Amino acid sequence: MRDTLLKIGLGGAIGVGSKAMRVEEEELEFLELPLRNAEAQLRTGAETGLDGTGWIRLPYEDLESVRSVAEKIAAFDSVVQIGIGGSALGNLMLHNAFLHPYHNELTRKEREAPRFYMADNPDPQGLAGIWDCIDPARTAFIVASKSGSTAETMAIFLWFFEELRKVMGEEKAFGHFVFITDPDEGLLRVLASKGALGTLPVPKDVGGRFSVLSPVGLLSSMALGVPVEGILEGARHLDSLLKEARGIWENPAFILAALHTLHSQKGRPMAVLMPYADGLERFAEWHAQLWAESLGKEGKGSTPVRALGAIDQHSQVQLYAEGPDDKLFTCLNVEKRGPHWLIPPSPIRELAPANYLGNHSFDELLGCEARSTAAALKKAGKPVIWIEIPRIDGPCIGALVFLYEWVTALTGLLMGINPFDQPGVEQGKRYTYGLMGRAGYEPDAAEVLREFGGLLAKTLMV
Amino acid sequence: MRDTLLKIGLGGAIGVGSKAMRVEEEELEFLELPLRNAEAQLRTGAETGLDGTGWIRLPYEDLESVRSVAEKIAAFDSVVQIGIGGSALGNLMLHNAFLHPYHNELTRKEREAPRFYMADNPDPQGLAGIWDCIDPARTAFIVASKSGSTAETMAIFLWFFEELRKVMGEEKAFGHFVFITDPDEGLLRVLASKGALGTLPVPKDVGGRFSVLSPVGLLSSMALGVPVEGILEGARHLDSLLKEARGIWENPAFILAALHTLHSQKGRPMAVLMPYADGLERFAEWHAQLWAESLGKEGKGSTPVRALGAIDQHSQVQLYAEGPDDKLFTCLNVEKRGPHWLIPPSPIRELAPANYLGNHSFDELLGCEARSTAAALKKAGKPVIWIEIPRIDGPCIGALVFLYEWVTALTGLLMGINPFDQPGVEQGKRYTYGLMGRAGYEPDAAEVLREFGGLLAKTLMV
Repeated sequence: MRDTLLKIGLGGAIGVGSKAMRVEEEELEFLELPLRNAEAQLRTGAETGLDGTGWIRLPYEDLESVRSVAEKIAAFDSVVQIGIGGSALGNLMLHNAFLHPYHNELTRKEREAPRFYMADNPDPQGLAGIWDCIDPARTAFIVASKSGSTAETMAIFLWFFEELRKVMGEEKAFGHFVFITDPDEGLLRVLASKGALGTLPVPKDVGGRFSVLSPVGLLSSMALGVPVEGILEGARHLDSLLKEARGIWENPAFILAALHTLHSQKGRPMAVLMPYADGLERFAEWHAQLWAESLGKEGKGSTPVRALGAIDQHSQVQLYAEGPDDKLFTCLNVEKRGPHWLIPPSPIRELAPANYLGNHSFDELLGCEARSTAAALKKAGKPVIWIEIPRIDGPCIGALVFLYEWVTALTGLLMGINPFDQPGVEQGKRYTYGLMGRAGYEPDAAEVLREFGGLLAKTLMV
Repeated sequence: MRDTLLKIGLGGAIGVGSKAMRVEEEELEFLELPLRNAEAQLRTGAETGLDGTGWIRLPYEDLESVRSVAEKIAAFDSVVQIGIGGSALGNLMLHNAFLHPYHNELTRKEREAPRFYMADNPDPQGLAGIWDCIDPARTAFIVASKSGSTAETMAIFLWFFEELRKVMGEEKAFGHFVFITDPDEGLLRVLASKGALGTLPVPKDVGGRFSVLSPVGLLSSMALGVPVEGILEGARHLDSLLKEARGIWENPAFILAALHTLHSQKGRPMAVLMPYADGLERFAEWHAQLWAESLGKEGKGSTPVRALGAIDQHSQVQLYAEGPDDKLFTCLNVEKRGPHWLIPPSPIRELAPANYLGNHSFDELLGCEARSTAAALKKAGKPVIWIEIPRIDGPCIGALVFLYEWVTALTGLLMGINPFDQPGVEQGKRYTYGLMGRAGYEPDAAEVLREFGGLLAKTLMV
């Protein structure tokens, strides 16, 4: 693979802005050694199976077991994935990039794949919506939870399973289920062997938000026709490039991690990721989890803000251009978006003022808007990184995904925090257990009632 | 209407956090007079038709003309709205709150309304996706642009119109179009009378982001069965409440504007809005435009961050709880979500540890999670506003929409900025005109090439 996969323009994020908030080349170079050490630490971790670094190995894993399950699933009318957070966002990102934007509305022949529904949020309205659309007898369910005890996932699984069991009995019901969970432990593990469609592991050292290139993200994708092999190929290509890079100026993961660390230290608490392609809208959403949950701890962290061009030019760009200088921007452009549709020159005389649009393609228009927004932000003195991929295909998306996993992990180590844990979500979980009456969580129930009571201490009714 | 529409818990946002960053009651009360003046200024503006304040009148407008167009549109198989920013986000918010989550996948009989597609982004992939799904001969197109010259909207209109014209001729093609635009001026105005389905105005003093209760937001909603009357009723109820309120502690718009202003002044540049209901996901998106574009100017502004519970507990809450104290949170709960589905106790012995979920409803689970997250954020010392609506219905959503319009406008005036303009988007527009070769924008073309060249001054190819 010798094609260019990514082009990264750095000129808008180095040496721009007020003196106190400017990031200079020397500062970046000063971080090269810590970055080199951080990379070594991560790669050693991946070899020894420690520390949540297993994602580094994922592009090299064999796909046979995933493929055999995916083939079975592909024969169903509908696929429902039950999972939340890292067990949902990666799938939604890959589907968004590669499936027809109205996949479920196409005929079976047009889509050449099952319909797909993500059952992530335990909102009864959303779940009932899915139930309205599927024929359970012709639906496969993927249940994905690393720990096997995620409350939302278990609740949704229990409901769907019970409905199937009532209709077809327990054994036949299990014939509609695949479980993706820890290879040895957890509640779902004990069920996994009963899932007649198969069972797939989340490697022990791969955390949810880094699991998109594991069976969690790849199974539904493969069943729906996403070019999974190309994605892994792109990730491997990026990996070999990182290994070969001589110094920070050849290493996209180093340079992006260093830029994010420095801009954050200089008083920019937000990182905006603004793709210019409908197919990358969910990439920003996936990135937001990776970024926030990996880096937000110990009072540190950078807040991911996701945008979409050109839509957010009519929503967020006013703030971006003229608001406070508190964001590092990444504009993510696609060089060629298909199909090649030309904007027609208007046949209507009164519309002559709009004729400047005529005979340009939509692709051109969106590309011009991306460049214009990046240039306007730069002119307004805001730091901007420009990233461009030639097209949305497997290798480019695989490289982009793997790059951002590296950037996130390296940024965490530069900031001096562990990018692979999430201690801050435990409190809310314990409170929920308490409110739901789970045995052993009585003190949490008392505490959450007290804390929540404090929120209502002053209440306004309308 | 004597039901409670909104409950606002303030205890988590007053008197909490470190001394330097704490907002005290007296500070809020100190803002009462400026807020009273700001309200008077806005209400006077609305009466005299000045200053973008026309949204204040919208809940009182007659719906007859919208209804008559909506009835015609409702007979089509599909409706495509062509519009971007304020001409799209309000519609998407109302549809999200009131339509089936998989509206387009239902049969005509089930949905009792046309399919709906939003053609906002000029990405050819998304547009081709819509084109694949519609039968143009049975499709109505709503073209919404206040100025009548929005590049994206004009380009998309020209394409669809030309395709229809080629098939059925110009006159019949116009029979599929409704135009919503300025009542007197602009490019679309000259076409409006040709739109055989009708034409509706955006009042001159109503800006895009404040236009959801105008024909821009209401036409498609009415055609699809959204309870538009109830929404306006809720907005009017909120309005009368604001008029009757004696002092800041009875005035939800005053108190929320004051809290946002003070928390922002004390070093919290972000406002997180986190609804706990699938049907309010797009409310946060609509709010993000209203907030960012109204308040982000002159180096000031607060960045809206949109989240969704419970999903973002598995994505953003780690950062929210343990990251920097740089956000004011609003958790937006719904007291009753339907349908009343119970999580079944598991029939499988091995799943006994999950039995604490059994016989609770999904509604209960999500409500417990909302309260737990709000309480956990409070315990972590982060400021939290708690808002609860009894259910997702017309009056509650109308009150919520109108409340946030007031909060946004008042916050702008408290911050000393004009919340109704958006000068910061002009630069990017001129650059796009330049790159697209529009006559008269040659200097902009030269400048954008220079600025953009700067972004690529240092480039890394992967």
